[in-house]
Parts: sequence; C-alpha cells; structure tokens
Amino acid sequence: MIVGIVGGGQLARMMALAGIPLGLQFIFLDPATDACAAQLGEHLCGAYDDAALLNTLAEKADLVTYEFENVPISAIATLEQKINLYPAQAVLASAGDRIYEKNLFRSLDIATVPFASVNSFAELEEAVKTITLPAVLKTRTLGYDGKGQVVLRHHDDLASAWSRLGTVPLILEGFASFQREISVISVRGRDGEMVFYPLSENVHCDGILHTAKSCPADPRQSLAEAYARRIMEKLNYVGVMALELFDSGNELLANEMAPRVHNSGHWTIEGAVTSQFENHLRAILGLPLGSTQAKGEATMVNIIGTIPDISQILSVPNQHLHLYNKKPYPGRKLGHVTRWSASQPIT
Amino acid sequence: MIVGIVGGGQLARMMALAGIPLGLQFIFLDPATDACAAQLGEHLCGAYDDAALLNTLAEKADLVTYEFENVPISAIATLEQKINLYPAQAVLASAGDRIYEKNLFRSLDIATVPFASVNSFAELEEAVKTITLPAVLKTRTLGYDGKGQVVLRHHDDLASAWSRLGTVPLILEGFASFQREISVISVRGRDGEMVFYPLSENVHCDGILHTAKSCPADPRQSLAEAYARRIMEKLNYVGVMALELFDSGNELLANEMAPRVHNSGHWTIEGAVTSQFENHLRAILGLPLGSTQAKGEATMVNIIGTIPDISQILSVPNQHLHLYNKKPYPGRKLGHVTRWSASQPIT
Repeated sequence: MIVGIVGGGQLARMMALAGIPLGLQFIFLDPATDACAAQLGEHLCGAYDDAALLNTLAEKADLVTYEFENVPISAIATLEQKINLYPAQAVLASAGDRIYEKNLFRSLDIATVPFASVNSFAELEEAVKTITLPAVLKTRTLGYDGKGQVVLRHHDDLASAWSRLGTVPLILEGFASFQREISVISVRGRDGEMVFYPLSENVHCDGILHTAKSCPADPRQSLAEAYARRIMEKLNYVGVMALELFDSGNELLANEMAPRVHNSGHWTIEGAVTSQFENHLRAILGLPLGSTQAKGEATMVNIIGTIPDISQILSVPNQHLHLYNKKPYPGRKLGHVTRWSASQPIT
Repeated sequence: MIVGIVGGGQLARMMALAGIPLGLQFIFLDPATDACAAQLGEHLCGAYDDAALLNTLAEKADLVTYEFENVPISAIATLEQKINLYPAQAVLASAGDRIYEKNLFRSLDIATVPFASVNSFAELEEAVKTITLPAVLKTRTLGYDGKGQVVLRHHDDLASAWSRLGTVPLILEGFASFQREISVISVRGRDGEMVFYPLSENVHCDGILHTAKSCPADPRQSLAEAYARRIMEKLNYVGVMALELFDSGNELLANEMAPRVHNSGHWTIEGAVTSQFENHLRAILGLPLGSTQAKGEATMVNIIGTIPDISQILSVPNQHLHLYNKKPYPGRKLGHVTRWSASQPIT
C-alpha cells in the first residue's frame, strides 16, 4: 500500500516514520529539492499544482493525504477527482479560510473571538469600531506560524498594517484575553469512529509554537472534545484534526483548526499509546483507530533556528530527540525534544 | 552523519527507524535485491564480501555496524581497517563461534551447559559419553533461529545427525533442563558506560523465538546483568548485546550471546523509555545512553510465515504492529506485534 502525501516536510516525515512499521510505503510531492521526508520514500519534486506530477502522484499512490493546508485548493481538487483523498477538499476549503472557519464555529455553537471580513481600508476602520483594539489583522488564507498577521494596538497601527497586508482578503479578529492556549488533537475514521487525545497546553513565542505539554485529565477536556466532535461530524472529516483554543477561565474560545497532524501533538509519539501520526494513517486507511490514552506525561519543546548540542539533549534522562534533517535558518523549525515523565500515574 | 549497516533486514530497518529521528542517514550492504531496510536508505546490493562494495560502504559511511553475526569475518575485518566499526571484529569472532563463546563464559565464571568440540564421528561418540543424552549437536558457526542444530535423544540419532551436520566443525551441548528462557539486552557505550534493560522472558517454537515479554523487577535481573557486564567489559564491547539464558530455578545458565540488537528486545520500542535500536546507535556514535526504564509491561509476538488480518491486530487496544515488508514464506519472520499494558505501575 502506497500513501501519497502532498508536502514533504517534517509532518510528512513523521507520518512516514509511523507508517513504515505498518507496512506502508510513501511518495511525497514537494517543490523543495531537499524536502526532509524524501529520506523515507519517493520524492516528486515540483510545484504543488504541477499537473504532470499530480497525475504521477495519483497513479502511483493508493490514496493521498496532505501535511499542509496551504497548498492550492485546485491541486487538491484535481487529486480528489483521480484518487481517494483525506481529509476531503471541502474540509481544506473550510479550514484554509479564516472567515469560513469562524462562520463554521458560529454555526456549530462553538464560542470564538469576534471577527469581521476586511476588504478595504474603510472596512478595516469600520471593523475596528465594532471589535475594538487591541485586535489582530490576518490574511484570510495562507497564514501559519504567525506569518500573515499584524497586531493592532493603537489607531496609528491601521495604516501600516493595511499597507503590509492589504493586497489580499483579510479578517480582523478581536484579541482574546486568555489564561492559556490549549489544543485538542482529534481523529475521525472513515466509518465515523472518533477518538481524542488528552489536551495539549501550548506556549507560543513570536507566533511560533514553542512548547506543548500533555494534560491528562484536564478540566477543559470534555468541552474541547465536544467542539471538535461537532466540527468533524459536520465536515464528515477523516483523519487527524487539531483545534486550537483559548481558555480564558470563563470561556473556551476556538481559535483555529488545522486539517492535519499538528505540532502541538508531537508529544503523542512518546506520551500516548498511539501517536497522532499513526492514527492519521489508520483513519485515512480505514483501519481501526488506536488508543489515545496518555502514557505518563510529556512535554515537547521545538528546536527553532539552530540545533543545540545533541549530546547535552540526550544526556537528560527520559528525553527524546527528533531532528527533521532541515538546513538551519532563523525561525525555522528544525526538530523537537520531548521530555517524558512517569510522575503522574498512567490514566 | 551516515551510519553503514552490514545487513539490510528487519534489524537494520528498525535501527534506521530509530536513527532517522536523531538526524542520521543510513546505507545498507545486503545481497538481497528486496532487502527490507532499503526503504530507509541507500542499498548497496551485493555479497557481504564484495571488495568493491565494502570499499564503497567504508567511503560513504561515517561508521559501520552490523545487524547479523553470520557475515564473513573477513568482510568485517576489511571494514575495520578502513573505518570505525562497532562491535569490533574481535567480538564477532568470539560470538560467532559457539566453542569460543562457551569458553569465554567459563573463563568469566558464567555458568553454562556442558559442551565439547566435535570434529569427527569418533569425537561425537566420545562427547556423548561425557555429556550424556539428550544433547544438542550444533554447527560451531553460522547457526541462528534453530538452523544448523539437531537434538540427539537416543544413540540411534548420532549417525543421521552426523551425516546432516558433519561437514563442518561442531559442538555438542548438554541439554539444559530449565523452567524458562530469558534474555538480557545490554548496552555499552564507547566510554564504557553500561545500561541494562529489564529481562525478557522468551518462548521459542521450533527453534524460532515466538514470544518475548518484559519482566520489570525480575528476581534474576541482577545475576543476568552481572554476566552481561563481565562479557562486555572483557570484550571492550560497544553497542547492544543480547545474552540468552536458561533459568532452571537453581541455576542461571548462559546459552548464547548475540553481538547485536535482538528479537527478544523488540518490546523495548513501546515498553521502555529508549528502544534497543536507539540505544545501539547512541552507543556506537559515542552519545549518552538512553534510559532503559520500563514503561508499563509489553509482550511481543512474532509474525512468522503469513501475515494475519491487519485490521484485527489493530482493533485490539494498546496493540502495535510492526511489519518488515518482507515476502511471506513458511518459517520467515515477517513482523511482530507488541501488546502494551499499564497494568503494572511504571517502575
């Protein structure tokens, strides 16, 4: 069985590492000549919307998934006409546009921040009146890791923010005051079976995830699961989905969803019975889903920009290193470290 | 960093799966065109003693190890002259010959079965008088998975056993009456640091390992470790070593050692903090060794000859599938299943 993945970065790489023991083979479509997943399968090197390569991918693979929501919808639509593809293109369309996404949350009675669509400077000024400052101006599509967004604190920030982002459709989002950021990694099989991992508590620095910690038996678990369940049922979702949330103490606000395995779920490799990567594959292949039970506690820290001393990392007991084989540059995710502990009894 | 492995079977495959997250790359030398590790690195396809390929391996790799003790000693010696190689050729020479191995046990005051070298039918008859029947006649070298050995129960068995095996140097071993078979997977770093996994309790069928179960806090742990420590120190061993033992209740007899990662340690992937595969790589690379602490309990069952229904395997909670991507034929190890449980509190 050959799984095609659109994208050949670290998420595809970790999917392949989880899938090879299941007897799977992999083929990746990625424009980067040094795509870091290529070590684990065939690499089709070219643009995501290269018609010939999409054709090859559909011919060689038995089914296709993607590691990244910022691929041209047209490419995913093309693939979906040729081959089984999960999560479906319709899901990607919803998740890839912040206005669609937030309207989806609202329609499912999932609390979220106030927001408004912004297509002109006049609309921006209007939106600021309703939503009030501080607020965040974001591109509707193609934003990730804090890219494509600007925080507006004062009225003076509007003009420069508009000149930076105003060439594409935007969304203005109210600033959520929260005590902590959490996420729930959820899995839905082809038969509708759903499982949920213990919540992750996340810390971002400069818009990039820095730390994610497993939270077995968190008081927000059931509400977060309820939100994720509504979304996955509504979209007839297949695969792993991440839902990022703000916990204000009073309210649990949905921030955004990612239709894929997610950085805040990397701790599941050591900290859960089945990793998010294996469960994504099980889901899209129509196999029974694996247990999401926590194994002790795990905290993941991203390696960003430069690779620290490996011996030092490995000299800490119960610490696991995951390098992505990517060339270092500032701000780039190069790997992660997971520290496991048995201090909590297994739940 | 590129690790060369002599052999491209499932042990090399699982080493690569453990090593890729450490940022390593792999190159395998294996004569099989369908070597199952080849999915995870470059494959040099040819005989183990092909001079040109050994040269290429030494040139491309930063250091070399092997997954299999039944490679020509000459090939390993050739490599050792060109490149760092662990465990050393001298280790392989000791472990690969049952007479050397048992003499080593004796010299280190490690209890073992009675044995005698057999190079003629007359010597066989003589040895049977001292050792008494039942006994096992084995080839001194190149035996594994029950191959190259015959059980002698009656005097009548001698002639047929001799005609089957008598073309090569042999060993006659006394039959150990034991309550259980166990093994200890041990690791020694380049700096002499040693760590030991909780014992495995093993069940063989037809000479092939069928089941291995982790035994945290086993009463035989300390003696088994003492044996392994003596051997590794004596040989200045670097890497993972497996020592198989017979536990008779009264005595703990060393059966044989394997200078490599071992089938009875596959449960460490899910059942220990660091797997035997990762620890072998850490050891040979001179990195700090990882914790061998048990995570719950784990039982591994080999998949031999035919691949059972995958959905059924994965529908059992806490069960993990490892397929080797090998063509099925009778008696061939095709994969293994590990069942994990938290029933015991983490030690």
